[in-house]
Amino acid sequence: MDIGSTAQEKAGLFAGVKALPGELKAKITSFAKSFTKLGQDDPRRVTHSFKVGFALSLVSLLYYARPLYDGFGVAGMWAVLTVVVVFEFTVGGTLSKCLNRGFATFLAGGLGLGADYFASLFGKKGEPIVLGILVFLLAAAATFTRFFPRMKARYDYGVMIFILTFSMVAVSGYRVDELVVLAHQRLSTIILGGATCMLISIFICPVWAGEELHKAVASNLEKLAIYLEGFGGVYFLSCRDEGSGVDSKDGSGKSLFQGYKSILNSKNSEESLANFARWEPGHGRFRLRHPWKQYLKIGALARQCAYHIEVINACIGSDIQASEEFKSKIEGPCSRMSAECGRALKALATSIKTMKDPSSVKSNVENTKAAMKDLTFALQAASIENADFLAIVPAATVGSVLVEIAKCVEKISEAVLELSERAHFSKTVEPTVSPEKPQQLLHRGIIRPVSDATGDVHDGNVVITVHEISTDSPENEKVDQHGVPKPDQV
Amino acid sequence: MDIGSTAQEKAGLFAGVKALPGELKAKITSFAKSFTKLGQDDPRRVTHSFKVGFALSLVSLLYYARPLYDGFGVAGMWAVLTVVVVFEFTVGGTLSKCLNRGFATFLAGGLGLGADYFASLFGKKGEPIVLGILVFLLAAAATFTRFFPRMKARYDYGVMIFILTFSMVAVSGYRVDELVVLAHQRLSTIILGGATCMLISIFICPVWAGEELHKAVASNLEKLAIYLEGFGGVYFLSCRDEGSGVDSKDGSGKSLFQGYKSILNSKNSEESLANFARWEPGHGRFRLRHPWKQYLKIGALARQCAYHIEVINACIGSDIQASEEFKSKIEGPCSRMSAECGRALKALATSIKTMKDPSSVKSNVENTKAAMKDLTFALQAASIENADFLAIVPAATVGSVLVEIAKCVEKISEAVLELSERAHFSKTVEPTVSPEKPQQLLHRGIIRPVSDATGDVHDGNVVITVHEISTDSPENEKVDQHGVPKPDQV
Repeated sequence: MDIGSTAQEKAGLFAGVKALPGELKAKITSFAKSFTKLGQDDPRRVTHSFKVGFALSLVSLLYYARPLYDGFGVAGMWAVLTVVVVFEFTVGGTLSKCLNRGFATFLAGGLGLGADYFASLFGKKGEPIVLGILVFLLAAAATFTRFFPRMKARYDYGVMIFILTFSMVAVSGYRVDELVVLAHQRLSTIILGGATCMLISIFICPVWAGEELHKAVASNLEKLAIYLEGFGGVYFLSCRDEGSGVDSKDGSGKSLFQGYKSILNSKNSEESLANFARWEPGHGRFRLRHPWKQYLKIGALARQCAYHIEVINACIGSDIQASEEFKSKIEGPCSRMSAECGRALKALATSIKTMKDPSSVKSNVENTKAAMKDLTFALQAASIENADFLAIVPAATVGSVLVEIAKCVEKISEAVLELSERAHFSKTVEPTVSPEKPQQLLHRGIIRPVSDATGDVHDGNVVITVHEISTDSPENEKVDQHGVPKPDQV
Repeated sequence: MDIGSTAQEKAGLFAGVKALPGELKAKITSFAKSFTKLGQDDPRRVTHSFKVGFALSLVSLLYYARPLYDGFGVAGMWAVLTVVVVFEFTVGGTLSKCLNRGFATFLAGGLGLGADYFASLFGKKGEPIVLGILVFLLAAAATFTRFFPRMKARYDYGVMIFILTFSMVAVSGYRVDELVVLAHQRLSTIILGGATCMLISIFICPVWAGEELHKAVASNLEKLAIYLEGFGGVYFLSCRDEGSGVDSKDGSGKSLFQGYKSILNSKNSEESLANFARWEPGHGRFRLRHPWKQYLKIGALARQCAYHIEVINACIGSDIQASEEFKSKIEGPCSRMSAECGRALKALATSIKTMKDPSSVKSNVENTKAAMKDLTFALQAASIENADFLAIVPAATVGSVLVEIAKCVEKISEAVLELSERAHFSKTVEPTVSPEKPQQLLHRGIIRPVSDATGDVHDGNVVITVHEISTDSPENEKVDQHGVPKPDQV
């Protein structure tokens, strides 16, 4: 009977679980799903979690193993605290916190001991008063320095630990007589905890902040490229097929059209990555003094480009739509310009990713400029025919913002070129250049690739016929597809 | 002789100080200047620093006063630690950290005790192994939850403290037998430290995150307004006087023209302020459940507006300049539109600042719409005359981006209206309305102010002649200046 009743109870329990309100069930399922997705999106998150668990288990050995415990005493607790507080996702973050914590503890400990000695000169009654004043003044001054933007960015954690340690040493010195022993114990356990974190974060599946920044900037350029490469097709084609430009907004290209939005607010994350990257030792393809600041410059230009795209998007979604006739007139140069911009950005992204010389992009930039000229001609041609001016303005606006984007892309290519020089990207010899004359063309001291699209080699003399070719659009398109190496193949 | 030598030494020392390398001197001076400037820019920074110093001195009383010390023992140290770590610039920040810390410590302490009890069931040998596994698993799981964006935004600190406390309690439980006493001591000192911070931050010159957000959003709208109000003058006048539009870029209006740039990257700071604001109790004019999220919506729209301004700025700085003839044709409606947008934004900013009903802005928005129509007429007129089309495009682009800005401003006014409804802004009766008929015009259920600019009152009937007046620009300008109350006076 007993068994029967428990079986019944079990059945009841199961029924209860089954009868769980649908909402709660759905919530749990969605939570589990987002949990799994979080891990799938970036498996390094799972690795990081296990690394933290491992580091904590390791330092708790300080407590379990008797010899170590006898050496460190309760101060072993500080190792646990250090691991929890200091372990960050990126190596740079961990190193920055470890070093900040180490130096701040050392400095503040020394100062605290000094303050204790100084206060003891004032006798038993004066000591707490002097110590109180010292703590007040130092804490206030140190807190104020945290408002300096540069301090905040790099040493904020250090200053906090400085205040913490100083107050603790100064205050507890009044009670604990073996202060030096205590300080020594605490410092050595902090170093132990910090070293554990540093070693684990560097040697077990490291996530380098520098590499993250490097990848993030390249992927931002790619997102812009995807938009610009697809733009011409969606803007001009959808209007032609369905007679309304608004469709381009919620059409098939929607997901592609939204990628750039994440760039708009990328400043903070890029800056913090660059800050962390400075603390990292040389790793992989990056030397110790890699020009991380240059990435911020490229990132700022990419944001500028994204602002322009945001405005173009607003204009496309506007109620006033351009006349189809005028649109078809500027379609050629506009599509070509945006496609060339896209190609140039893709090539630049690939150049950053592979750390190879980006000079092959020069031809894309030249093509963009040529398309800009074509647009000028198209506009001049339109002015002769004189359609309804009002219907022309929206498309003209899109064209003229595209021109601004093209200028932005040119600036980005210059910034990437500067990066490639300062970071010593590997130079590639273009396969289209005859091997015995690899450096025929020099442009601003940079090797400029000679491809079929930009010139022909006749007996060592290079004839550049960029603009003539460019105005002849169909041929130029063909040459681009075959002559200029696509960025994906670089 | 003794005195003489010290005097000499002193003189030498002074000479040495005087002979300090100029660079170092300059550096020290500039540092001192930036130090002073930091305090002058926001005197609350100085107050905050003193508050931290005061709180620290207060909790260090735990050490100095013998009765307290006997009660808490070395655990008093945790009060010092709590103050340093928890005290933030804003009340919301401090409260969020305090509550996070308090709850996390309580929860993790309980779980840690449970883990200790559970592990002790496995005997002396099994205990450390079981504890190690538990710490590993819990730390890994908790670390992983920190990657959830929502957790990261609100409870990141709590999760960290949870890991910290759990590891400490679980691990030290293996050694310290009076664990419950220890946990009690630690919790009570943390509560003491936290309470000190909360009381000081709330009652001594409080800096409310909610109020900061409120002010920041209003000031962002003002920055946009300053740009837009000045835009027409600088863009159209500078070209007329000097024949080059580029001057507007680095002319006298430069500082005014740069204000909006800070809006471009305001997202993170606004979001963190909104997060902190949620933790704050009702204060001043803000109730407990003030619609903080609505500020984020307004902030996002303001950023949208700033993106457009950024593009206009790029267009102005472009090499291709518009024809003066065409410019002069669209100058009227463009200037009026941008000025009206500016006025509307200023009125909205004032409405937010004073927490008064923003419905007076309706008239500005209507004027903007009228100016938009005027621009349409001007463009149609231009299409008949047919000037050089190429020279027209830059100005037309500026005009058409201005139209997008006007749409943005309309959206902002709607968002502010929604805020005013949800936050119960006080309704104001416009002084220009005759007192016996205060609610003549109802528009979408909102009181619409009747001013000379938008209609005339004849025997209780209101004749609205908005569009007719608006196309007649000089009169409208005059009326705007005198008839429509300027936002500063609201």
